[in-house]
Amino acid sequence: MEKHVSTAAALTDAELTLIDRYWRAANYLSVGQIYLLANPLLREPLKSEHIKPRLLGHWGTTPGLNFIYAHLNRLIRARDLDVIYICGPGHGGPGMVANTYLEGTYSEIYPDISEDAEGMRRLFRQFSFPGGIPSHAAPETPGSIHEGGELGYALVHAYGAAFDNPDLTVACIVGDGEAETGPLAASWHSNKFLNPARDGAVLPILHLNGYKIANPTILGRAGDDDLRRLFEGYGYEPLFVTGHEPRDMHQQMAATLDRVFERIREIQEQARSGKSTAGCPRWPMIVLRSPKGWTGPKEVDGKKVEDFWRAHQVPVSNCRGNEGHRKILEDWMRGYDPEDLFGADGRLKPELRALAPAGKRRMGANPHANGGLLRKELAVPDIRDYAVDIGKRGSVVAQSTEILGHYLRDTMKLNAKAANFRIFGPDETESNRLGSVFDVTDRVWMEDIEPYDVHLSRDGRVMEVLSEHLCQGWLEGYLLTGRHGLFSCYEAFIHIIDSMFNQHAKWLKVTRELEWRKPISSLNYLLTSHVWRQDHNGFSHQDPGFVDLVANKKADIVRIYLPPDANSLLWVGDHCLRTYDRVNVIVAGKQPEPQWLSMDEAVKHCEAGIGIWHWASNEEDTISPDLVMACAGDVPTMETLAAVDLLRKAIPELKIRTVNVVDLLALQSRDQHPHGLADEAFDAIFTADKPVIFAYHGYPYLIHRLTYKRANHENIHVRGFVEEGTTTTPFDMTVLNELDRYHLAIEAIERVPGLKEKAKDALAAFRGKLAEHHNYVREHGEDMPEVRNWTWPAA
Amino acid sequence: MEKHVSTAAALTDAELTLIDRYWRAANYLSVGQIYLLANPLLREPLKSEHIKPRLLGHWGTTPGLNFIYAHLNRLIRARDLDVIYICGPGHGGPGMVANTYLEGTYSEIYPDISEDAEGMRRLFRQFSFPGGIPSHAAPETPGSIHEGGELGYALVHAYGAAFDNPDLTVACIVGDGEAETGPLAASWHSNKFLNPARDGAVLPILHLNGYKIANPTILGRAGDDDLRRLFEGYGYEPLFVTGHEPRDMHQQMAATLDRVFERIREIQEQARSGKSTAGCPRWPMIVLRSPKGWTGPKEVDGKKVEDFWRAHQVPVSNCRGNEGHRKILEDWMRGYDPEDLFGADGRLKPELRALAPAGKRRMGANPHANGGLLRKELAVPDIRDYAVDIGKRGSVVAQSTEILGHYLRDTMKLNAKAANFRIFGPDETESNRLGSVFDVTDRVWMEDIEPYDVHLSRDGRVMEVLSEHLCQGWLEGYLLTGRHGLFSCYEAFIHIIDSMFNQHAKWLKVTRELEWRKPISSLNYLLTSHVWRQDHNGFSHQDPGFVDLVANKKADIVRIYLPPDANSLLWVGDHCLRTYDRVNVIVAGKQPEPQWLSMDEAVKHCEAGIGIWHWASNEEDTISPDLVMACAGDVPTMETLAAVDLLRKAIPELKIRTVNVVDLLALQSRDQHPHGLADEAFDAIFTADKPVIFAYHGYPYLIHRLTYKRANHENIHVRGFVEEGTTTTPFDMTVLNELDRYHLAIEAIERVPGLKEKAKDALAAFRGKLAEHHNYVREHGEDMPEVRNWTWPAA
Repeated sequence: MEKHVSTAAALTDAELTLIDRYWRAANYLSVGQIYLLANPLLREPLKSEHIKPRLLGHWGTTPGLNFIYAHLNRLIRARDLDVIYICGPGHGGPGMVANTYLEGTYSEIYPDISEDAEGMRRLFRQFSFPGGIPSHAAPETPGSIHEGGELGYALVHAYGAAFDNPDLTVACIVGDGEAETGPLAASWHSNKFLNPARDGAVLPILHLNGYKIANPTILGRAGDDDLRRLFEGYGYEPLFVTGHEPRDMHQQMAATLDRVFERIREIQEQARSGKSTAGCPRWPMIVLRSPKGWTGPKEVDGKKVEDFWRAHQVPVSNCRGNEGHRKILEDWMRGYDPEDLFGADGRLKPELRALAPAGKRRMGANPHANGGLLRKELAVPDIRDYAVDIGKRGSVVAQSTEILGHYLRDTMKLNAKAANFRIFGPDETESNRLGSVFDVTDRVWMEDIEPYDVHLSRDGRVMEVLSEHLCQGWLEGYLLTGRHGLFSCYEAFIHIIDSMFNQHAKWLKVTRELEWRKPISSLNYLLTSHVWRQDHNGFSHQDPGFVDLVANKKADIVRIYLPPDANSLLWVGDHCLRTYDRVNVIVAGKQPEPQWLSMDEAVKHCEAGIGIWHWASNEEDTISPDLVMACAGDVPTMETLAAVDLLRKAIPELKIRTVNVVDLLALQSRDQHPHGLADEAFDAIFTADKPVIFAYHGYPYLIHRLTYKRANHENIHVRGFVEEGTTTTPFDMTVLNELDRYHLAIEAIERVPGLKEKAKDALAAFRGKLAEHHNYVREHGEDMPEVRNWTWPAA
Repeated sequence: MEKHVSTAAALTDAELTLIDRYWRAANYLSVGQIYLLANPLLREPLKSEHIKPRLLGHWGTTPGLNFIYAHLNRLIRARDLDVIYICGPGHGGPGMVANTYLEGTYSEIYPDISEDAEGMRRLFRQFSFPGGIPSHAAPETPGSIHEGGELGYALVHAYGAAFDNPDLTVACIVGDGEAETGPLAASWHSNKFLNPARDGAVLPILHLNGYKIANPTILGRAGDDDLRRLFEGYGYEPLFVTGHEPRDMHQQMAATLDRVFERIREIQEQARSGKSTAGCPRWPMIVLRSPKGWTGPKEVDGKKVEDFWRAHQVPVSNCRGNEGHRKILEDWMRGYDPEDLFGADGRLKPELRALAPAGKRRMGANPHANGGLLRKELAVPDIRDYAVDIGKRGSVVAQSTEILGHYLRDTMKLNAKAANFRIFGPDETESNRLGSVFDVTDRVWMEDIEPYDVHLSRDGRVMEVLSEHLCQGWLEGYLLTGRHGLFSCYEAFIHIIDSMFNQHAKWLKVTRELEWRKPISSLNYLLTSHVWRQDHNGFSHQDPGFVDLVANKKADIVRIYLPPDANSLLWVGDHCLRTYDRVNVIVAGKQPEPQWLSMDEAVKHCEAGIGIWHWASNEEDTISPDLVMACAGDVPTMETLAAVDLLRKAIPELKIRTVNVVDLLALQSRDQHPHGLADEAFDAIFTADKPVIFAYHGYPYLIHRLTYKRANHENIHVRGFVEEGTTTTPFDMTVLNELDRYHLAIEAIERVPGLKEKAKDALAAFRGKLAEHHNYVREHGEDMPEVRNWTWPAA
């Protein structure tokens, strides 16, 4: 395998000159955006007032991004390719904007930024300017599906976009800073999950400019030999483009891209001809070594700038106040020779404009990068076909996620032809009881498959890898390009992707404000193997705090559901899969649990989001109860019902109302969340003055935070997970956190005015039960029979 | 480079037989822990009642872990090595417990689990049993610094432990499941930061058993050739140990470990002799391919178990109820020949016990794995030496983190000889204004150093890599082995390590309950480049939610500080560095900001955690004010003071109290947090009934959550970050989120009963200012002069 591709005559002299001019135009526009308020074409000498008062933007990575963009344009035109561009170094926002402006996309979307001198002035001014556009590639940037914020997710987004898009090539630029992150280091292994017969291609371009903010980078300083071995080890064929002299670099890049797209075509043809389905092809990737701040000032104030980290942001900083600096900027910009690039009217010269692809082939206009344009509704079956017949209430035991698995299996089947639905998870689909989907599909796997392997195939639609980062990133890429999916995960470990969730929620918030960005499917989490049933894995696996993070995001973006049983999970799962532009979090157990609601009841209850369970209440109609027992989450619901049962048997005259919450954000005030209950409705459920014992699935503080504006808030007493846990029995987990039936019943007695004295015997009995439990589990290693075998009493 | 090390005569026959017996003993004890309640030595046929009712544990990885442990014991004895064992596959808890029991450490720490038949019975029974020990390697496990929970951090912990421990070798077992995670994939690059002259060695052992829960693994299925290239690419010398036949495997492993420790010695001697300081040495690492569930049942119920994922947890499951299953278990355990391993009294036979190292050389007793034993107090300078002279209040401008940088520089200097303090950060030490530390140290870097590089050296004590995961993991490993450190990070991106923080906080919670675990230094975060000053990077860089996650943890573990200026940051930073067994989060800006408190005032204020700023209040002593203006965080403090200034000028008769909060958890009730103010103290500050306008740095809900129990809670009106942001000016960021001086002043007027009508003109003026601001920034690209130039008025 050779290191550098032979560059003989990849481009004619004329072609080379044209592509170099195009590149210079992009570089010119990039610098202009960072610096200029006015005088965009340098028709007059640069003056202080032409310079922005605050210089915000990143030059360092930009010329390399522009170089790649120009060369991809050539290939797209030459081969009529369908390509999108993922800009890992998101700081290179000026480059992305410059290129989409040059190709015309920008002005089509934002007519105000027209293709003339005045448009160019506005283009420059708006960049990183109040009321303008962000400094990074962002939702506002045409052609982007990748926010240039947090680093690490470019490549995994690229793979997500390529799955089930056989004609698409996703060019993915990975900066050498980003390449140091964990998620990116794992993302290279995504090639083991991409099937050339049905998926598109990903072309990773590792863009090494050698430096991050103030340091060299690991891969930038590594030798070619180590890099070659590293990427061969990851399963790629690395091709190197190295240098700084533009003409030589153009020839190298053109030849390398020709070779790369040849190779991609070969791999795809071979796979699609049915000639070979064996193993994981060795896809090409490019290592592009070019100077940081390429073509920018070599030195400023006697300090090295080009090809060093000082070129990272604004290479010459005081152009408004310092004439010498301003001169450096002017020389730099004039060095691109704007008269050679733009006509008298400020438009890009026609021979250069002709280098950009046309219509949807332009990377800024490719509909894959505005996935809502391509999104087809997911076909879903009728949830009633999967309903659990609950018989006598609480007597039937079912595994909620298993029931949902049947629904997902048929959803998978209904959309098999459309090939636009996948399920993602870190090796836990079966463990999370969604195994029914394997009746109709497999796990995708491109490495060797052994005869004894189970449900592994090249064509599987279940994506399993022991990396929550990859699951999340693939799914994001898949959704952003207009498809559908579900991510099932152990509840505790979803925190691994907290920051990715953050970034995606931010993306959605901004896209909802952009009319031209069309809605995409919601990002759906099924969090299972949850805190209360991690009794076997212990404390490290017990954390219900992801929803706290979610609740911080903009209300229109997020929903949190805690279905108490299988039929309600069916409603919630189905509902979430049909929504768009949201993040839906569903928390539901996978263990056998009693079933409470018929399908009709579940539909009604879930649609309301919150409601009184009259069958579990003994208050008389329209009379205020003595006590409200509220719950959210499957285990808390069971413990609450068991507590209600205990209380009713011990103190029959106590009037108890039982309330269940499915849609957690319904607890919030209506002015805080669109699903929030109106105050009257809330008071009608929780009363205005009675004690509420609230058994909640997660950290109790969230309930206080959601309800602090409610009239009865000071009577709401919440129990939840308080960071007590270990390897023990399921019931002992609730006891350790004082969320169990006995603690709930005891608190109920203590909170109802005057009851404590009257119900002394019951109090003593419940306390006795806690002591009995303590001894029993430590002796027998399992829960007391009366706990294990408890069922809701017949009416 | 050869693939397999020649195995000729690494072990004599006698040695081989002994080590194999030792391994069998560990395997026997591992199986016993998973399955048995009684009959530990199989002195009678296995009966139903000998089996645990719930079988919780993981067999699959355990025999391999035991194999490695036994062989490391041999090397430790032969070469008198100082080695700790990091068990990446934390599920292998039974193996870690078995080995520390065999070497005697376990019984020394837990005398109840004695080295005899009764002790063995208790050892078995306690495992994964209520009131017993967790199923994973955990704080309870001797010799462990690594919780076996979330996967991905074994190798980064190993490197953290090795830094500045020149005589230590950290053997780090990485499972092939874990190897799929992002953080682990990046961790291999830690070799670029380890200096053989001053640091210890890390020996990574990639333990490929081929499967995770229900799937093959990426590296397990990869060919040797790809693996070799991958790890060579990462900069290692990979050595392979492959097979399943025990005798052959023992010889391979022994020979390979001999070679590995030779090579480690060579590298260290060369570096320490001063002969070579060039480049990054090619450290050896081992790829151990052994079957999953090695030596366990080959098949159960006709299905492949050994060497397949079905061996992951409990390979034969129904041993209590199914006689056939019980027979498989009994045959399996008897296959290890317990009579050959344990004497009549149940003790390990003396010739086997002699294979374990003695005293502190035992990996379970190595003090590095109980870092508090080795921890020396950090030497710190007097903060008064760095105090900012504030002159006229609010007139001096300083960058808080820069001032802290001076203190850190001298702390670094004072501990240079002890070599037990490092600073960690993702390429942001300089950007976060801590650059003074480079007066006395550099960034560590083992790849090539160019003449024009700045503050890069082999001996630097600042660790910079563009991976929050690596920074966090290195620091954790460094702290867990008894040293000190600080992690400075952009506030938004600290969410990347949310889950690592979770796991570390859980570790601390449990270790505090174990008398034999000695306190370690706190994990200190300095979050800067915070939400209000990410105006230049935009929305993706704006997130203050990490503290919400932190506040969910056990109160004794966590502290959150929001110092309003440089002197208070000095107090807080100094305080945090001197605490132990905690996680301290400090949020402080790096931009020039007005200074409010003299050092004396800062000390008093920070020690109280919360207080009235009388100099900024105009209430008369002992008289209740009309209004409380509260703030937490530097930018909110400035906006609050500016609002107070506006209000006092516009409505001189309004009696305003100004309150500042440094120690956020002081807001909580005393029964919820040890720093919580007593209710009377809280009421004395916030009043029982006056409106409180609270300007908070982060998401406003947190303040409600912390104060919901307080008498005056319903009058507390919080403003904070509400997910509105973009690239704009600093002041515009506060306006977008309605945390600016004008919004604060307007709300104050609206909330004080009867004031709205009286202060109509002021209201109109403030609203006018908001409109004026809106237009001004969009025209000029910077904030209005009256905003930029505002200063606190002279007294």
